[in-house]
Amino acid sequence: MTTHDVVPDLAATTQATQLRHLLDGRWAGVRDEARRRFGHTDLHPDPALTIEQRRERITALMHELAASGLHRLGFMSEYGGADDIGGSINVLQMVGHAELSLLVKAGVHWGLFGGAIQALGTTHHHERYLRAAIALDLPGCFAMTETGHGSNVQRLGTTATYDAAAEQFIVHTPDVAARKDYIGNAARDGRMAVVFAQLITGGRNHGVHALLVPIRDDAGQPCQGVQISDCGHKAGLNGVDNGRLSFDQVRVPREALLNRYGDVAADGTYTSSIENANRRFFTMLGTLVAGRIAVAGGAGAATQTALTIAVRYALTRRQFSATGGSDEIPLLDYLAHQRKLLPALATSYALQFAQQELVGMLESMHAGDGDTPARRRLESRAAGLKAVATWHATSTIQTCREACGGAGYLAENLLPQLKADSDVFTTFEGDNTVLLQLVAKNLLTDHRDRIRNLDARGMVRFAARTAADIAAEWAGTRAAMQRLRPGGLRDRGWQRALFADRDEHVLAGLARRLRRADEVDAFVTFNAAQDHVLRAARVHVDRLVLEAFVAAIDRCPDPDTALLLEDVCDLYALSNIEADRAWFLEHGRLSRGQAKAVTQAVNALCGQLRPHAATLVDGFGIPERWLAAPMAQAAGVTHGGTADRDRAGGPAVSSPRPTAVAS
Amino acid sequence: MTTHDVVPDLAATTQATQLRHLLDGRWAGVRDEARRRFGHTDLHPDPALTIEQRRERITALMHELAASGLHRLGFMSEYGGADDIGGSINVLQMVGHAELSLLVKAGVHWGLFGGAIQALGTTHHHERYLRAAIALDLPGCFAMTETGHGSNVQRLGTTATYDAAAEQFIVHTPDVAARKDYIGNAARDGRMAVVFAQLITGGRNHGVHALLVPIRDDAGQPCQGVQISDCGHKAGLNGVDNGRLSFDQVRVPREALLNRYGDVAADGTYTSSIENANRRFFTMLGTLVAGRIAVAGGAGAATQTALTIAVRYALTRRQFSATGGSDEIPLLDYLAHQRKLLPALATSYALQFAQQELVGMLESMHAGDGDTPARRRLESRAAGLKAVATWHATSTIQTCREACGGAGYLAENLLPQLKADSDVFTTFEGDNTVLLQLVAKNLLTDHRDRIRNLDARGMVRFAARTAADIAAEWAGTRAAMQRLRPGGLRDRGWQRALFADRDEHVLAGLARRLRRADEVDAFVTFNAAQDHVLRAARVHVDRLVLEAFVAAIDRCPDPDTALLLEDVCDLYALSNIEADRAWFLEHGRLSRGQAKAVTQAVNALCGQLRPHAATLVDGFGIPERWLAAPMAQAAGVTHGGTADRDRAGGPAVSSPRPTAVAS
Repeated sequence: MTTHDVVPDLAATTQATQLRHLLDGRWAGVRDEARRRFGHTDLHPDPALTIEQRRERITALMHELAASGLHRLGFMSEYGGADDIGGSINVLQMVGHAELSLLVKAGVHWGLFGGAIQALGTTHHHERYLRAAIALDLPGCFAMTETGHGSNVQRLGTTATYDAAAEQFIVHTPDVAARKDYIGNAARDGRMAVVFAQLITGGRNHGVHALLVPIRDDAGQPCQGVQISDCGHKAGLNGVDNGRLSFDQVRVPREALLNRYGDVAADGTYTSSIENANRRFFTMLGTLVAGRIAVAGGAGAATQTALTIAVRYALTRRQFSATGGSDEIPLLDYLAHQRKLLPALATSYALQFAQQELVGMLESMHAGDGDTPARRRLESRAAGLKAVATWHATSTIQTCREACGGAGYLAENLLPQLKADSDVFTTFEGDNTVLLQLVAKNLLTDHRDRIRNLDARGMVRFAARTAADIAAEWAGTRAAMQRLRPGGLRDRGWQRALFADRDEHVLAGLARRLRRADEVDAFVTFNAAQDHVLRAARVHVDRLVLEAFVAAIDRCPDPDTALLLEDVCDLYALSNIEADRAWFLEHGRLSRGQAKAVTQAVNALCGQLRPHAATLVDGFGIPERWLAAPMAQAAGVTHGGTADRDRAGGPAVSSPRPTAVAS
Repeated sequence: MTTHDVVPDLAATTQATQLRHLLDGRWAGVRDEARRRFGHTDLHPDPALTIEQRRERITALMHELAASGLHRLGFMSEYGGADDIGGSINVLQMVGHAELSLLVKAGVHWGLFGGAIQALGTTHHHERYLRAAIALDLPGCFAMTETGHGSNVQRLGTTATYDAAAEQFIVHTPDVAARKDYIGNAARDGRMAVVFAQLITGGRNHGVHALLVPIRDDAGQPCQGVQISDCGHKAGLNGVDNGRLSFDQVRVPREALLNRYGDVAADGTYTSSIENANRRFFTMLGTLVAGRIAVAGGAGAATQTALTIAVRYALTRRQFSATGGSDEIPLLDYLAHQRKLLPALATSYALQFAQQELVGMLESMHAGDGDTPARRRLESRAAGLKAVATWHATSTIQTCREACGGAGYLAENLLPQLKADSDVFTTFEGDNTVLLQLVAKNLLTDHRDRIRNLDARGMVRFAARTAADIAAEWAGTRAAMQRLRPGGLRDRGWQRALFADRDEHVLAGLARRLRRADEVDAFVTFNAAQDHVLRAARVHVDRLVLEAFVAAIDRCPDPDTALLLEDVCDLYALSNIEADRAWFLEHGRLSRGQAKAVTQAVNALCGQLRPHAATLVDGFGIPERWLAAPMAQAAGVTHGGTADRDRAGGPAVSSPRPTAVAS
């Protein structure tokens, strides 16, 4: 096929094409290839399928993906890959527009299982397993989470005890809390698992390491000592076979240890290239940051699909007529409806630009950079963007469903599946709340380093900052922030300064609060400030997202498209400020007049962007076949709506009564 | 059985029992009866059931409900009922704790279909159909919503044209937009439908009226001229058979018209006891307000179940240990987790008290009060509470799912079903956005009447109000609101004054904005103020809810329980103020210091109520059988949690690093 199959398929106007190219970024080629290969496939599951049929279907789609070759981009070229991790993440995101179970199953097998072998293993693991893993001949699991330990990985209970006499590791599950849980690919297809366990040799625990453990034989039967159960039905993602794994003294050869960062000699001697155990642990886990970035991408893709469906519906569906008029009004002409969809649409643009920037950072990162500042920055950004993007997905897809009324509740209109499948993204691959704590902790570490690096005079200046900061709320900063430039609220420089100042002020305040804590009440102090901790992370991510949007506009070759994006960026920035205006008011960054003006500006931007709504959703470049929702297709007929048993709203819109009321 | 079966079943402490009695209110008897009859039944559907099996199951449960006698409470005593509409709504709410498909199917058949025959029909309709409807021998539908018209009922397209020669009405669907859609009980079980259509006689349209139209014969086959299709799978509520109905020149006798408020004589002469057509229309629809109240109740019940499950899980599930400590910390000890669950729990208490107050208002209302102020007040409150309660359900059940991590995503832990089933409540029985417009419109009407009733001197004072109001933001009101009483932020009088002032100020400002509109740009003016319109309704409902909470505490006989509820009420009021503090700051009602203090007070209240969390959820009085979520049961073992691939959060809590960072 040629791209000609794609362009009309996308109903793309010239401007929508410009937008698509900018959103696709340097991965336009691979994304168009994914559109060509799968854009004509109906990826939506029939809602009548049983869970077993859903799993079979996804397994079949996995093989289609494998046949396309697009699945291998992220692997080393020696093994048929392209060393293109960014490309593989973009392929998953494209798939995520239509079928999140496929994204997750592919992410678990190729990304986590295959990725762990490549990143944590050494040559003999690569030689022995990588080709089979890539070809899907060796379906694999990533067995980290346990029933009793999700977020606190360092405390997991599974043990891998070395038996020098037999030159084997004994993998064991001591209790039910140590059972591996929610493991994708485990209930049905997995043959081997990367198992994370406490590595014990010579009676000493060297911390969590990963080993390759066979879980099913060629006949598909559980291996000796391996107990496998099924997590059963879930809210969504029922095409993925999540299961539980328990090990009863399971013996694996010494070579089963993925030994890139820590090895055990035949005699049981432990060696590692990384002295510090904590750093070693985080280095091993850090290599898996790509999975988190893929989830952020999938969340973004699902949100973009939901917005495309809801915006198109709002353009065809009419309800209530204006005073005197007989024609009813399209839903998207109502301010309340614009407010439901357009700020979320602007935010989806912002997040997609931030996502592609993050993928670029990942590509430029050399594996095993360990605990370097650059590495920590990448992990922070991945954690923060994953949290923000997945919460945005949950709230936006929910809003899209409501904006389509009863029609949005019908399976045939696709929103229910998108909602149910994306729902778990906020809590897997790292619970969002825990992830934001990671971001805040790294911010605090950098903050500490900056302070440490200050010379004596700097220290004095810093010591004086506490008072200065507080004073600033009442004087300098406040005045500076309230001083609008020529562009007024839409002055990009002013918006950026506001985001930056919020980021720095919240962090500095948090550092001061936590500094008061001593060892004894460290937890009490931390816990009392937990909302402040989460906020510091959140506003930092918001700042990065705005900067990514600004950078994208600078890259835009087409002036008209750039102008449109300036408005979209304004809507993102101002709706973000509006939602948080209490803070800006509390800290004197906005005057009451300005705060009210921000709300008015958001309303005005909604009206200004409404005529461009169709173009903006077309810009996401989602194949029409993946958007086949009857309610949005029906020409003329306006589907949907919700039962209403009285005068609700009718007269408020279609009669002059609201006017009469106060006249 | 005796209540002894119930109390232990509820694991109720004395205080939990006190809370339950207060929440049950005057319907404690019927609620306990429902607990006795169904509290030992597992009402949760097996997630593996097909849609057909789910429908069969709900139909069977409908017959169990009919066998209990609890289904007939709301009907007239002459027909075996108890004239106890409040009791019937409370029975539905109890059922809603565990199985919302049953609540909706029962609400459609007995509440809407049976309720329409009773309220809109006259003696011969009652004599001919009511007993069969009550006994479930005549399964019925409520056919109002059309594919093209949900909220705008006055514009629906189905016609009922009178043929004097044959003394029949011809019911007809002119086009697909006029097809009846999302009709509960239509796809599988319904035999007869209350059909809303434009009544035409002598060539004149008398507006929307209701007629009884048979849709299936005794063999279950569609009647002549009636086309029935199936809406298929939905996001949830798949135990309810929603379908579509089209009528092709279907003839029904003249007596099929439910003629209480409008009748057609044999010769085609139309007569009505209500002259004004608009008023007649709203009077007919107003009699169905009970359905909306039942939905608010069902949303509340589902939310209470989700909170009970999530709070109990947060008390058993531990993750991360404090510095130095080895024991991990229960999730509910974390401030962030408390903030996710406890303000929502307080709000659920507030909404349940408001719900029972509303049910009491409904009982004291005489049917057919038409468009009286009392009637309008009831409808406003029902519309507003339904909107606020259902949005609270959607966000809270979502939060509960996230607060339970991966475990919350498993069907076995019940949260997915609660989320999926309750999701549509925000848009059916009146779209929430449209409902809030109704509330605002009624508020504006009352506002206008108050002004009209002012004498000359009053008018002068009113004319001066515009300037006065604005001045007030900077002087009087601002000072009054900022002047804290002895109790500080927790002074109930101050909180109530703040809620009341917000309500009145937002409404007065809205009236001024809309007054500027003339006939020509009435829509433009309304639309530009739509966010203001919705806000006026929202803050009015918030005020009513707070007042209902205050009244409930006054009724509480036990001093200790009353003290506990005072704290819960503080958390409701202050978390509401915190969420809206931008407005209070913008309008000078809170100083920046006070706004920050509100956030601190919410944090403090979370810590103060955390030891009472188990008691507060037990107070909802939900039978243990309906709460059988494995994750919350497992003693010792802490289920759930979410996969996390790195240091996220761990050290932030379990190491002194955050402290070290800033020291």
